[in-house]
Amino acid sequence: MKPDSVAMTALSSLGKQGAVCIFGTGDFGRSLGLRLMQAGYEVVYGSRDHKNSTLLPTGSKVMSHEQAAQTARVIFIAVHREQYSFLTSLTSALEGKVLVDISNNLKRGLYPQSNAEYLSTLVPGAVVVKAFNTISAWALQNGGLDANRQVLICGDHADAKQSVVDIAQSLGLTALDRGSLRAASELEDIPLQLFPMWRLPFRIAVGLLAAFFFYVLVQDVIYKGVTEGKDISFRIMISLANKAIPMVALVMLALCYLPGIMAAFLQLYNGTKYRRFPDWLDRWMLCRKQLGLLALAFAFVHVLYTYAIPIRYYVFHRRFTFTSTMIKENKTYEFDNVMAWRSDSYLAMGMLGFALFVLLGITSLPSVSNSLNWREFSCIQSKLGHVTLLLCTAHVFLYGWEKFLRPSAYKWFTPPSYMMSLVVPCVVLILKLLLITPCMDRTITRIRQGWERPAKGGTAGKDAKSSRPLIL
Amino acid sequence: MKPDSVAMTALSSLGKQGAVCIFGTGDFGRSLGLRLMQAGYEVVYGSRDHKNSTLLPTGSKVMSHEQAAQTARVIFIAVHREQYSFLTSLTSALEGKVLVDISNNLKRGLYPQSNAEYLSTLVPGAVVVKAFNTISAWALQNGGLDANRQVLICGDHADAKQSVVDIAQSLGLTALDRGSLRAASELEDIPLQLFPMWRLPFRIAVGLLAAFFFYVLVQDVIYKGVTEGKDISFRIMISLANKAIPMVALVMLALCYLPGIMAAFLQLYNGTKYRRFPDWLDRWMLCRKQLGLLALAFAFVHVLYTYAIPIRYYVFHRRFTFTSTMIKENKTYEFDNVMAWRSDSYLAMGMLGFALFVLLGITSLPSVSNSLNWREFSCIQSKLGHVTLLLCTAHVFLYGWEKFLRPSAYKWFTPPSYMMSLVVPCVVLILKLLLITPCMDRTITRIRQGWERPAKGGTAGKDAKSSRPLIL
Amino acid sequence: MKPDSVAMTALSSLGKQGAVCIFGTGDFGRSLGLRLMQAGYEVVYGSRDHKNSTLLPTGSKVMSHEQAAQTARVIFIAVHREQYSFLTSLTSALEGKVLVDISNNLKRGLYPQSNAEYLSTLVPGAVVVKAFNTISAWALQNGGLDANRQVLICGDHADAKQSVVDIAQSLGLTALDRGSLRAASELEDIPLQLFPMWRLPFRIAVGLLAAFFFYVLVQDVIYKGVTEGKDISFRIMISLANKAIPMVALVMLALCYLPGIMAAFLQLYNGTKYRRFPDWLDRWMLCRKQLGLLALAFAFVHVLYTYAIPIRYYVFHRRFTFTSTMIKENKTYEFDNVMAWRSDSYLAMGMLGFALFVLLGITSLPSVSNSLNWREFSCIQSKLGHVTLLLCTAHVFLYGWEKFLRPSAYKWFTPPSYMMSLVVPCVVLILKLLLITPCMDRTITRIRQGWERPAKGGTAGKDAKSSRPLIL
Repeated sequence: MKPDSVAMTALSSLGKQGAVCIFGTGDFGRSLGLRLMQAGYEVVYGSRDHKNSTLLPTGSKVMSHEQAAQTARVIFIAVHREQYSFLTSLTSALEGKVLVDISNNLKRGLYPQSNAEYLSTLVPGAVVVKAFNTISAWALQNGGLDANRQVLICGDHADAKQSVVDIAQSLGLTALDRGSLRAASELEDIPLQLFPMWRLPFRIAVGLLAAFFFYVLVQDVIYKGVTEGKDISFRIMISLANKAIPMVALVMLALCYLPGIMAAFLQLYNGTKYRRFPDWLDRWMLCRKQLGLLALAFAFVHVLYTYAIPIRYYVFHRRFTFTSTMIKENKTYEFDNVMAWRSDSYLAMGMLGFALFVLLGITSLPSVSNSLNWREFSCIQSKLGHVTLLLCTAHVFLYGWEKFLRPSAYKWFTPPSYMMSLVVPCVVLILKLLLITPCMDRTITRIRQGWERPAKGGTAGKDAKSSRPLIL
Repeated sequence: MKPDSVAMTALSSLGKQGAVCIFGTGDFGRSLGLRLMQAGYEVVYGSRDHKNSTLLPTGSKVMSHEQAAQTARVIFIAVHREQYSFLTSLTSALEGKVLVDISNNLKRGLYPQSNAEYLSTLVPGAVVVKAFNTISAWALQNGGLDANRQVLICGDHADAKQSVVDIAQSLGLTALDRGSLRAASELEDIPLQLFPMWRLPFRIAVGLLAAFFFYVLVQDVIYKGVTEGKDISFRIMISLANKAIPMVALVMLALCYLPGIMAAFLQLYNGTKYRRFPDWLDRWMLCRKQLGLLALAFAFVHVLYTYAIPIRYYVFHRRFTFTSTMIKENKTYEFDNVMAWRSDSYLAMGMLGFALFVLLGITSLPSVSNSLNWREFSCIQSKLGHVTLLLCTAHVFLYGWEKFLRPSAYKWFTPPSYMMSLVVPCVVLILKLLLITPCMDRTITRIRQGWERPAKGGTAGKDAKSSRPLIL
Repeated sequence: MKPDSVAMTALSSLGKQGAVCIFGTGDFGRSLGLRLMQAGYEVVYGSRDHKNSTLLPTGSKVMSHEQAAQTARVIFIAVHREQYSFLTSLTSALEGKVLVDISNNLKRGLYPQSNAEYLSTLVPGAVVVKAFNTISAWALQNGGLDANRQVLICGDHADAKQSVVDIAQSLGLTALDRGSLRAASELEDIPLQLFPMWRLPFRIAVGLLAAFFFYVLVQDVIYKGVTEGKDISFRIMISLANKAIPMVALVMLALCYLPGIMAAFLQLYNGTKYRRFPDWLDRWMLCRKQLGLLALAFAFVHVLYTYAIPIRYYVFHRRFTFTSTMIKENKTYEFDNVMAWRSDSYLAMGMLGFALFVLLGITSLPSVSNSLNWREFSCIQSKLGHVTLLLCTAHVFLYGWEKFLRPSAYKWFTPPSYMMSLVVPCVVLILKLLLITPCMDRTITRIRQGWERPAKGGTAGKDAKSSRPLIL
């Protein structure tokens, strides 16, 4: 007897957890088997050939499918849907067993029926539970945290589900019941999702970027080309990008705080927090974090672009031309105190705004936001968020300065580009200012605490209400 | 029978977990109910009107309070303290039940008695357990991680507490017993805390910033105004800020390592690690992380400000003036090799120091520091931390260079500002240097391993000591 | 009876969990005791003197070792290995007990035998289980997350192990069985590890940095010194560093994607994914994350260094000299449109590449990557990663421009330094381009799905294969 077998004998006798069977010896089957053995289960693999058995966790057994099925009540089906058909030949061996369907597909909508339901029709004598498909082999082997720790389970039989819940919990995972087997197709879609929450914000960002870029392209390069016949298309790479990008960043930051303000006004108008928001507002509220993080990404690129200014050939050339012209024409360049104040203030606002913005981004990291209580989270995301917006808006105002007074800025009767980005932030800030006036603030606070609803000539709510608002 | 009910029948029959009752149909009541059902409990809501029942999780039941109370042993009271009084009319129905008080208040010290104790006096026949008040509705719905995963529980009856512990654990949460119901007021204060650990470091930062800013304001703007009658107040926005901010950053970084060094010297003096540190040192040690992160924030702003220098109008004007004056007066500007070395070294030290500082910050993120073992964490936070401090101190020394020799730098007999920020870092570095000399290092290592305490003429410790030092 | 005792009576009667004994009253013993009590256990300390009992958690009992041992079946040995000898005098009291060895050593290989096995030989009548040595006292007190949440357990007796598993789980920790007591020495090494996964990437980084630095030193400073007798050694601090550092960053980023591509070609060659990769490739694949993060660190320093350019004395002096020479010699400095395009494009590529690189870094944070499903993670790390590499390579190409055509760039017949850093990235990009051609992409996708292996004149695999590839 080798030393290893001694250990494994001890291990499997630990198995007051009992035996579990796994059909399929692929990556997931192997990882699952290893993890089950570490948690004290006896693991039996069902396999047609025993070639791959060298890769299987030592201590596990490999048998034919029929034999393996007899050793355990719960059988994990770790094979592809395409190969399920072999199970029809095992119907008698699988009678009454709990089959755990852990499979995923390569694309959505490949089949009309979910894999689990298909399995259920193939082996009607067995009870099918869909589970573990959202857990990766990697997460199984490495303990699994956060989102990866949740095993979503669905199935039609309570007892069978409970067996799977028990196994999940003894592996240190959290089980979440998602209802009947009809939910299986939903569960099978989860690992195929690609940033569902980011789609809308991303589209908004791309749309805004395209629009603003086109606007500054017309105002800058095309205007110059048409009116003066000069080709300044080299400005596209940095100068124009560094006009469009911060505009997107500012507008998206404002869009991140607009729905909260609209919700507050809606609550004020309704006089209650117990009426549902319209769907579009709900969806908007749910993607505020993503909007904010995309805005931060744009702001970061803006900072990178801005600091690159003095390294650019174009800027060096312009400065040289200015200096040499002034000297040759023997002009004096008076120091303008207002200009010095304005230039420094505009930079300072922008840099402080960016620093706060980075702080907001850091507190959005799952591990950081999870270590804050609700009051701390809302203090940072709401209060500091509005201060950030204020600083960034001031940054743009100071940048523009009196440009909006100069007729030359209105090329082809269009306002200078920076003004375009100020509309939404100003609306948000003015509405927020209204909301924090004492009288409105008091009303909204009472509404949010749930015990105030001035019903017009009707019966006021009598029932006890919730204790905490959701998020904000 | 609708499809949904089928699923839910299966689900509720899963309920070997049994039934749980929830009074109150607000946000938290709904989230809790949904989560409990997902974990296999049968959920019954107690409510006076059934209007809100459309918002309740499908599959749950809504009854009058009296009826609902009869269905379960554990009743969650998800209403505001202000509405507890209605429970007095249910005393007979609540006899012997376990009432879980999950409420929080809006402010600290609103009531002399904690909500849970108040509830206990209202319904003396029931057993009150305080729990779940630190868990947010959001965390319940989304699985909850890290700090949000901990359910703090207190109550006077062990059995009742155990029932709540069981529920918490089956929801995938971790239960922590916090003693008798008298601890309830403490638990109720937790969600109202606003960055308790950050308060002291934040105050230190603000104090230092104000002091340093005033100092450079006097030395720079006011001195110039008084002696030369020149208004250079525009320098406040960036030039002065960029003097005061890095000073704060450096001093706070040093303050972050000072208590550890003081503790080491105290242990050397005491000859043991088993004597408690004075309270102020303990408190200081506990907020080192916060001190360091605030220092990093200041360093980050310093970097932003410094890189903005060449974009500033003032700097461009000064450079132009310098160039045009030199050219007009036909002077030559000799290349100074020492100056080139110094300027580059000073920048390089600062940039490397900042890069290491960012690394320290990243390893302070909960998810990163949790993936390090103690040795790795201490290697980064202690060794790399001191290297960071050394680089940043060298940065300031090289920045100052021989300025301290020039009498003109001592305006109104005050030393140049940068020297002020060097005091604490130099003290820390010199003391650290002493500590890592072989002889002191050996002694302190032995003391920290716990088995050395040279007692003067007394009996040496005989008992077995701990295996690992706490943090560092 | 003091109020505290009431609470504690309730608490300890909660103890359906039973009593646990701890020998040793050091940091770890105290933290463990506190945590056990919070989870409802009765805790009894065994100690020779009772001096330290003031520091012990209130509610726990302190007895002599003999007495304490009688109160519980499981005894945690929280003393140093050096003091184990006192246990020999307790052999009768410890007969049949489960001794949990939680000890660690100060260095690897101090003793020929692991602490747990040594303990087992000292007290042959007891059953020794190695556990909890990877958990820090700090993690115990603060809940413990992620890696710190895993209790690794080994031992020869299944029942004894199960008792420890039960305790770990009731503390909210995850237990992982690691086999027989012979695995103890392995477990004891874990807390002594110092970034084992980072060692190879770190060595590669240092090696590359040294090589590239030497190369640019020769080409720049030494060449100038030898051929023109000019001392430009001041360039070492920033100019040279800022050449060598980005070269390291780019090469390491490419090295991070090379093994994945090699693996794909190997799989194509083998026609299956079920043949093991050579060991060196496996090891390389496992440290891709570390390679990438080190590359990011170098890229970050490169960005810091680059933005410092216009602040440098040397640069200011050079620009001044250029300007004054041009003016004095009355030359005109024509605007070069190609140069403007090139300079801006090169900067833009670099900045966008860096921004994407930072995004890659953020998604590598444990808490972020754990909230992504496999498809999202692979989309970011693989697709976005290759785009990043492409941008950064383009950045270097545009930086070099036509330099490679100038004979003067080939100092001492060596190619200009930037070309050295382009070799590996170009290889990676070309091979990747090959892989994503439709025909190769289709084959590799089928191989990775596991159901395709064109075996030459043999029997094709018949068995069901895994559902998901590991990582990528």
